[in-house]
Formats: sequence, structure tokens, C-alpha cells
Amino acid sequence: MALRLYTYWRSSAAYRVRIALAVKGLAYESMPQHLLRDGGEQRRPEYLALNPQGLVPALEHDGHVVTQSLAICEYLEETHPQPPLLPADPRDRAAVRAMALAVACDVHPLNNLRVLQYLRGELGQGDERVAQWMRHWIERGFVALEQLIGRHSVDGRHCFGSMVTLADVFLVPQVYNARRAQLDLVPYPRLAAVVQHLESLPAFAAARPEAQPDAE
Amino acid sequence: MALRLYTYWRSSAAYRVRIALAVKGLAYESMPQHLLRDGGEQRRPEYLALNPQGLVPALEHDGHVVTQSLAICEYLEETHPQPPLLPADPRDRAAVRAMALAVACDVHPLNNLRVLQYLRGELGQGDERVAQWMRHWIERGFVALEQLIGRHSVDGRHCFGSMVTLADVFLVPQVYNARRAQLDLVPYPRLAAVVQHLESLPAFAAARPEAQPDAE
Repeated sequence: MALRLYTYWRSSAAYRVRIALAVKGLAYESMPQHLLRDGGEQRRPEYLALNPQGLVPALEHDGHVVTQSLAICEYLEETHPQPPLLPADPRDRAAVRAMALAVACDVHPLNNLRVLQYLRGELGQGDERVAQWMRHWIERGFVALEQLIGRHSVDGRHCFGSMVTLADVFLVPQVYNARRAQLDLVPYPRLAAVVQHLESLPAFAAARPEAQPDAE
Repeated sequence: MALRLYTYWRSSAAYRVRIALAVKGLAYESMPQHLLRDGGEQRRPEYLALNPQGLVPALEHDGHVVTQSLAICEYLEETHPQPPLLPADPRDRAAVRAMALAVACDVHPLNNLRVLQYLRGELGQGDERVAQWMRHWIERGFVALEQLIGRHSVDGRHCFGSMVTLADVFLVPQVYNARRAQLDLVPYPRLAAVVQHLESLPAFAAARPEAQPDAE
């Protein structure tokens, strides 16, 4: 089985997939796409042929391409079930997916690169307004996640129960982005404790941006 | 089995879940939350206790609450597998999920109500700038979806293969939003043909905003 990940070291969506691959112990070839160089390598025709959205990540598995970080994670879960990143019970699976989606749908899309570029360019917003925008949406998400972790974590070291799940896989890269936006985690003590534990795990450490071959 | 859906007629995320429930033939009690009245009924303490994110939809199933439209759809798929909204093969499931996520993560979060309110309020953008913003992100998404439908549709009447899937469930509400933003569908003939077929199906018709008890 050959796995190739089209990635960028600072892309938090790619970071999620790197964590999932590492948790499952799957080796892969890294295919970095520089999101800023030459207007974005992810917009080149060769890459658009792989992923018409022109976004990273994309995973190639024996020549078959899967896009969208959550679809990739669910695909890995279905094709490589051990260790699981979703619990067994449908209610629990829904709770984990809802936390992952709270990041994937309600926080990250509002502060990814192309949106910040639009705010600065088309809407002419300055650095301070852009930073406020970023913090606003991350804070809205983290307030909710802090409560959801309180509801679902058993050991205070994982978002759900006492296992690594997709909720953890999605939370850590979002916290990486939050730190870049100088967001203070003090108002979210449960979330901060979970992330502190997760970042100590080898799979999460291997996936972090600074550890990637294309890190600058 | 008792199902209650916390919904709002014009919420496209709730619209997705209404379609999924209707396709699976599941009856439910509608619990409308008016997103504009009194600053948003979804922000009342009673509702925040159900869903700390303060967003619709939320599904209550025998007293257990599931949030996030995609997590709800996956939950319904796991608990009520017939008729399926995902194909059987992991690669195909990934392709369907990726199309649904292209809407859920890369289009809809950028033009939902709270974001438009922020653009108008905090960023002081006028109607024309807000409309341009909406169209920009929808167009980016539809350009990619048009190609993905070309790649995955078999009959030209469904996003994937020749069955109703989560990709269709997510596309139709996004097209409803696109029409509200006066977006022209002519550049997306495959997408438009799929939507025209889907809107003729009873399950999709029953779920549309104008058919809801709280429609205005």
C-alpha cells in the first residue's frame, strides 16, 4: 500500500491528516505544496487535476485520490480501523464528529489563508481588524468546545472519553492557529489541559508543522 | 422512537437534516428556533444547554442530543441505514463526503447569518460588498463541485453515481442560498441539472424552507 499526502507544513487541515496517519502508524510520502509561492502551488493545473478545489490536503492511496481532511480521516478509519479514532456507539461517534465539525465548519473556514487574503485585499482590512476577526471566531468555537469537553471527557486529557479521537485530531491544529493569532487559552482550562496532554504524544509531535520536511 | 429537530426554516444546515430525515422516511417533531427574533432564540440559555454552540440544527433522539448537521446525518445513517445516503465502498464514501464537505466547510461557513452580520456590523461593509463576498465563495465552491459532479455522477441527476447521497443532501440547500444571493447557475450546467432533478423528489420538496411550519 502506497500513501502520498499532498500537504503544506502550516496548513491546519493537512496537520489533522498527518496526526491521523501517525496515530494509525501509517507511513506516507510527503508531497509539499507551497501555498504562498508563485500565487500558490495548489492552484497549478497538475494539482487541480488531483483536487479541483485547489486546497490541501489530498491523500493518494494506490493511485486513488481522496480530498477534504474529514473525508480522508473517515476513509482512513474505514480502511485502517486500528487504532480507532471514533468510538463504537453511534451516539458517541456523533459527539466526537460534532466536536471535530465545530472546528472544521465553524472556526477554521473563517481563518484560513484564502479568507484572510480576501479580508486584506478585496475588503481592505488592516492587520488589527484581521486579527480581531480571527480571534472572534476562534473564541466563539473554543467557548463551546470548552463546554463540550467538560461534558464528554472522562480523563481530562482527551476531548471525548479517555481515548484519542477525531475531536482531538481536529482540536490540536486549531490551537496551533490560535497561538499564531496570539489567543490566550486561559479562559479554556479544560481545552488547554487536553491539548497539553495530546501534544506530549509521539503521533501528535511527529505531525506538528515544525517537524515537516517543508517547514521554513 | 421520538425524534425532535431544532430547526429554522431558512437555515441551510437544518435544511440538510430535514432532507436526510425525509429520504429515510423518519417522522419528527419540529422545534423552530427563530434565528433573528430577540437577538436569536438559539442563544437562549435553554437552547445553549442543548447545544453550547448556539447553532441550529440539533436533533433530539429519545432524549439524546446530536448537533452539527453532518454528524446528525452520519448518525442517522448509522442508526437507520435504509435507504443509504452513503455508498458501500470506502473510496466512494470518501468521494461523497468530500463533496458534502466542500459545501459544509468551504462555502456555507462563509455566508451564514452570523458571518454576514459581522461583515455588516464590525467591519462596516455595505450590501454590495456583502453580496460580492457571498457570491465569491459560492462560485469558488461551485466551480469545483461542477467538476466533481462530472467526475462522479453516472446519470447526470445525482452528484455521485445514480443514487441520492449526502452530497445531494448538502448541495440543494446551498443552491437555495445561492439563489438568495442572485447567483447565476448557468456556468454550472451539471450542478444545475442535478439540483433540478433532486428538487422534483418528494423528500427534497418536503424539506424545503417554504414548506416548513415556521416559514414566513
